[in-house]
Amino acid sequence: MMRQGDLVQTTSGMAPGRVQANLAILPRDLAFDFLLFCQRNPRPCPLLEVVESGEVEPRDFAPGADLRSDAPLYRVYEHGELTAEVTDLGEFWRDDLVSFLLGCSFSFETALIKAGMEMRHMTCDTTVPMFITNIPTSSAGVFSGPMVVSMRPIAQEQIVRAVQVTSRFPAVHGAPVHIGDPTAIGISDIYAPDFGEPVEFKDGEVPVFWACGVTPQAVAMSAKPPLMITHAPGHMFITDKMDEDLAVI
Amino acid sequence: MMRQGDLVQTTSGMAPGRVQANLAILPRDLAFDFLLFCQRNPRPCPLLEVVESGEVEPRDFAPGADLRSDAPLYRVYEHGELTAEVTDLGEFWRDDLVSFLLGCSFSFETALIKAGMEMRHMTCDTTVPMFITNIPTSSAGVFSGPMVVSMRPIAQEQIVRAVQVTSRFPAVHGAPVHIGDPTAIGISDIYAPDFGEPVEFKDGEVPVFWACGVTPQAVAMSAKPPLMITHAPGHMFITDKMDEDLAVI
Repeated sequence: MMRQGDLVQTTSGMAPGRVQANLAILPRDLAFDFLLFCQRNPRPCPLLEVVESGEVEPRDFAPGADLRSDAPLYRVYEHGELTAEVTDLGEFWRDDLVSFLLGCSFSFETALIKAGMEMRHMTCDTTVPMFITNIPTSSAGVFSGPMVVSMRPIAQEQIVRAVQVTSRFPAVHGAPVHIGDPTAIGISDIYAPDFGEPVEFKDGEVPVFWACGVTPQAVAMSAKPPLMITHAPGHMFITDKMDEDLAVI
Repeated sequence: MMRQGDLVQTTSGMAPGRVQANLAILPRDLAFDFLLFCQRNPRPCPLLEVVESGEVEPRDFAPGADLRSDAPLYRVYEHGELTAEVTDLGEFWRDDLVSFLLGCSFSFETALIKAGMEMRHMTCDTTVPMFITNIPTSSAGVFSGPMVVSMRPIAQEQIVRAVQVTSRFPAVHGAPVHIGDPTAIGISDIYAPDFGEPVEFKDGEVPVFWACGVTPQAVAMSAKPPLMITHAPGHMFITDKMDEDLAVI
């Protein structure tokens, strides 16, 4: 349905248990540096698969799929400016494009929910709050910038479990990067996220921060490449693999 | 001392607790494909750090070090043929060389020993037995070939613990790739390793196989690049990081 353009909506909750991926598509002359950036910053940029120039099929995560049409909605950026939002990349595709599939927090949120935790932003049907931190990433070529994190309120007595559960999944951001005081990582107002929407805290809840897949997109965008294609926010590429396949233990 | 050429010996047992790394150094025009090969095959090719062309300092794992001189012994290969073994790369260095530091089994062997397991090849003061398997790797550009594994006899009752202990360290090969019947992964004679030396089994011991860092070297070598530099076998590059820093949990 997505290939035909007949299913254009956010993929949260779709195909439960399947790994969903962030997409970042760049010309080949930037691919080495972007790959290196991901290698150096595995927590915000957990690489699932790289599809080389001239190819459109993620053979490992979604054999038979076509990256040009099988996500619900794409964004096209030229020199850092959004120039198109399309359901099919046909007219923009070039043979020198390299596609990066990056892990998405949907996978570890499923694990947290199974472990009995409420995802407040889901309860409220809002986008998870995300913050630009003062945590530096390790640069590579033109790619550099601060780490972006997502935040979820977690009850004090569930924090240990939240760490354990997400530690199993380094391929989808892994363990938290910070627990507690937001100012320690350069966040001055927990109710004023840089992306997404704020959420309320209940008594005894603590802010827990995970590295966020917005980081590589923000970093790539600020490098203003001549062409960069991504999925539209929330409109992920759904793969064939199961979240559990990504667990290290 | 290594920088001066005054300490030329295998590094097994040196600087206990510090991460030791395999070195693979290639010209930049092969670097993207080799990086991609490592990304696609994280168990045999666990990338610790990539040092870009024009640089010689692994800033993350060994700030202040110089990759051209600080391993005890290097091997230089031209078109797949060994042409030199040197303690200093000065005369071979080129500004287009990219250096890859890859995780080494010494790190997880330390963890296994701490957990009470005997490393038979250490007891016998031999090189761990390694086998070419029928497990395919995922190719990238010119790089392709079968996975090489190392084998350690583990007592039946310690196998679960061996899996747990090494699962904590995906950055140094991680959990075993196979336990038990060697023929299941294409090994016909457990006493005839392709590299290293055979070891004896005691009653109740089972062969346990881990992905081996020889894989990327074997694969790179078979691609016969014009120039490739590695550490000499067993003569690893010792970093400043602690093995425990690499544990995911």
